[in-house]
Amino acid sequence: MNIEQFVAQSEGRWRSMRSGHSLAFQQFEDVLSEVEISKTDNNDADIAQLLAASEQHSDRSISCPFRMKWAAESDWEPDDPSEVSAGSCLIVPLPIDDTHGLLLRSVGYAEAAPAQSSYAFLSDGTFVLTTKYEQSIAEERIWFVSDNVRCRSSVLRTSAGSGVLQTSFASEVRRLTS
Amino acid sequence: MNIEQFVAQSEGRWRSMRSGHSLAFQQFEDVLSEVEISKTDNNDADIAQLLAASEQHSDRSISCPFRMKWAAESDWEPDDPSEVSAGSCLIVPLPIDDTHGLLLRSVGYAEAAPAQSSYAFLSDGTFVLTTKYEQSIAEERIWFVSDNVRCRSSVLRTSAGSGVLQTSFASEVRRLTS
Repeated sequence: MNIEQFVAQSEGRWRSMRSGHSLAFQQFEDVLSEVEISKTDNNDADIAQLLAASEQHSDRSISCPFRMKWAAESDWEPDDPSEVSAGSCLIVPLPIDDTHGLLLRSVGYAEAAPAQSSYAFLSDGTFVLTTKYEQSIAEERIWFVSDNVRCRSSVLRTSAGSGVLQTSFASEVRRLTS
Repeated sequence: MNIEQFVAQSEGRWRSMRSGHSLAFQQFEDVLSEVEISKTDNNDADIAQLLAASEQHSDRSISCPFRMKWAAESDWEPDDPSEVSAGSCLIVPLPIDDTHGLLLRSVGYAEAAPAQSSYAFLSDGTFVLTTKYEQSIAEERIWFVSDNVRCRSSVLRTSAGSGVLQTSFASEVRRLTS
């Protein structure tokens, strides 16, 4: 698995079931959401802006940039429209070799500011993404169970110590629309 | 990571937060439980019985057999004692090399009968366990986030096709008792 194959396999619309675990409080949060992943043009003006704002300007070539959109409905207050969270994000991979690279995001996962991650593929093709935020470190894993089902886990820990704050797991099924 | 190190790191009492995802029905099930993992003696009479009942008798040597006990409290009917599920299981690894092997269980994960699994460690030490049951195939993954936190995911699919039935994810925190 390399980043091109991974992005190609990820493209499309996904129905996501996601469970968050708050370890300190032993609280669960279950969320149904819709995720859409679509390739974008290498010449997209937002890409140039994201590259300019990061430490990685022009010395590395980008590969298969894409956009991710999501809309979630929380289980806590499904009738309250303010609980419906939605967003979108531009993601730009900068491969180092076939199994490693960097990845720029216009919106972070743990914190909303733009984020820079490093990624690696494990021996079975599992995609592992590590992001250092100001207050925390996130490790995300994405692996395909079949062409149309993928799993996504995350672990968030404090950057100061090794304390694990929360974890999450999403089961994502591709929407096959005609 | 090899099986001896993995079992040594797993030994102890764990507080588990587990979320099950039923993909067809888009249902969540969140369960808090306690898991205890303890090494057992190679000469345990139950081990001889488990080996005798399996296809793997005496041609492979066993390594660090252990017992797993669990007691779960479902979130659906926490006041109903019949909803409290508990059980225990004897697990016997039969290594082939440092990163691969077989594993016998007195009680299966997806089906209650004794089960034989194959295991492998990924490049980052993630333990991947594959079990073929009569009606289904289960893939479990266990990885350590720190010495005292581990994650466990499972994917259950039909053995006939490639249909994914359900997934689960558990965040497990070691109980540090004095």
